Amino acid sequence: MAWDTERTRRLLLDAAAGEFSARGLAGARVDRIAAEAGVNKERIYSYFGSKEGLFTAVIGDRLAAVLDAVSITGSGIEALTDYAGRIFDYHSAHPELARLTFWEGLEDGAPAAEEARAAACARKVARLREAMPELDDYAARELLLTLVTLCDGYPSLPNLDRLYFGDDASAPDRTARRRAAVVATVEALASALTAAG
Amino acid sequence: MAWDTERTRRLLLDAAAGEFSARGLAGARVDRIAAEAGVNKERIYSYFGSKEGLFTAVIGDRLAAVLDAVSITGSGIEALTDYAGRIFDYHSAHPELARLTFWEGLEDGAPAAEEARAAACARKVARLREAMPELDDYAARELLLTLVTLCDGYPSLPNLDRLYFGDDASAPDRTARRRAAVVATVEALASALTAAG
Repeated sequence: MAWDTERTRRLLLDAAAGEFSARGLAGARVDRIAAEAGVNKERIYSYFGSKEGLFTAVIGDRLAAVLDAVSITGSGIEALTDYAGRIFDYHSAHPELARLTFWEGLEDGAPAAEEARAAACARKVARLREAMPELDDYAARELLLTLVTLCDGYPSLPNLDRLYFGDDASAPDRTARRRAAVVATVEALASALTAAG
Repeated sequence: MAWDTERTRRLLLDAAAGEFSARGLAGARVDRIAAEAGVNKERIYSYFGSKEGLFTAVIGDRLAAVLDAVSITGSGIEALTDYAGRIFDYHSAHPELARLTFWEGLEDGAPAAEEARAAACARKVARLREAMPELDDYAARELLLTLVTLCDGYPSLPNLDRLYFGDDASAPDRTARRRAAVVATVEALASALTAAG
């Protein structure tokens, strides 16, 4: 029974991640999520309360996955650039959290599950400052916001990539080249910040 | 009569920019746009063909406005950083085009009015390379894509700003500080690219 509940929750979270990633919160349909999961839609209300509650649960679930998979290790600028590359790879391979974040920014603007997510951001800021003690707190926040905006932007804004790169946007090496450009951006900024400090 | 047509088109474009910016293409309602403009909704279909046609017209209209208002002038890295600051200011003051671009990336992924917008991007790339001849074509495209992602990101992703900055995200100096961080990012990257060249 508990196992069945966990399995049903997982089916619903995965179906909902796909639906919210494709259509946002307003455009998502609970009927479609239930059908995709193969679960009666009443379960959505009993487990998550509402479509909004399900959105919040999906964000929390996907955030936990990326925090498990990718963290800042080592020290110095290499710790930051290595992290930037791995975060870029993660969001390119699993674009759901990036897209959910962008939908949320446009649709509501207030973060769901704010407390848990802000705490995760604060831990990342603290970890970055351990790796690069020359960075002050505000600069570390700006740097991570820049990194996240660029890494989340690549899978969320294929229209901009197409406008700037034309047919090169669909070339096999495009993702690797954008990754290198994002890592170079973060590296240049961190170098400038620590040289000035 | 021609004057009346122009005036009606303008009322519809402005009402539609607000509606699309708030709700995206799928969530926008032609009825609401017509009511906001004070115009019979049949005019939308006769002037723009469809809701999608109106979205494309709004993007073209807002793009023309930013191209008129902000361009790359002068030479060297200062030309780029000056442009970055003015583009940031423009999108912060008039967030509609930034938000429309983000909605389009999430909802469809293919750019509306692609030919005209790609041509505008190509002119910006050429103008940047006039100002900074050391940049190769691909690097100039990456740099402008980074600049646009960061400048458009600030008004489109208030959720991320809130998560990283908490109450500081609503401090009176927040926009000026983010502007400085974006300009510093572009400057550091351009310096690194030209030093390496």
